[in-house]
Amino acid sequence: MIPKGTIKRIMKENTNLNISAESVEKLVDILQEYIVTTTKLAEENAIKDKRKTIKGRDIENCDEERLRSKIIEISDRTEKVNILTREFLKVLSSELKRH
Amino acid sequence: MIPKGTIKRIMKENTNLNISAESVEKLVDILQEYIVTTTKLAEENAIKDKRKTIKGRDIENCDEERLRSKIIEISDRTEKVNILTREFLKVLSSELKRH
Repeated sequence: MIPKGTIKRIMKENTNLNISAESVEKLVDILQEYIVTTTKLAEENAIKDKRKTIKGRDIENCDEERLRSKIIEISDRTEKVNILTREFLKVLSSELKRH
Repeated sequence: MIPKGTIKRIMKENTNLNISAESVEKLVDILQEYIVTTTKLAEENAIKDKRKTIKGRDIENCDEERLRSKIIEISDRTEKVNILTREFLKVLSSELKRH
């Protein structure tokens, strides 16, 4: 388990506000999930490359991989993507008018 | 500083492959950066809300906020977004034909 004290200390170094225990717990949960997802994606990368060792580049690659799967997950549970899509189409249609 | 031993242990729980020291270091760097960015965004959230304490919901909100800024950063340095945009437009134009 990631030590809450360490996380809170790093947070403190980056803000002058008070830090609630709940916010530390939420961040620890997110980091924990981040490590699990990243390790699994890095493993896939290494296996695809016929390696038995996870290397630095596997971790780097999967940061973007994770981002992509996260975007899909978010698109499934939020209206924001729809709003963004509409904005995207508005920009596109205004381009259409100009040419 | 986040303890490398703890991170490596969590990684080990999620893969049977060997884990290089470099991959642990890369992951620790990413986590460290994640905490810094998240704390700063959470602070902005709390200040906007006229609070002096960072709460759990500030952390939750900024996970998506961070994702959005990351997407923009990626779109600036990769061709993938252009490719996805083209795919998006292809799907859209095929919709156009059907109606």
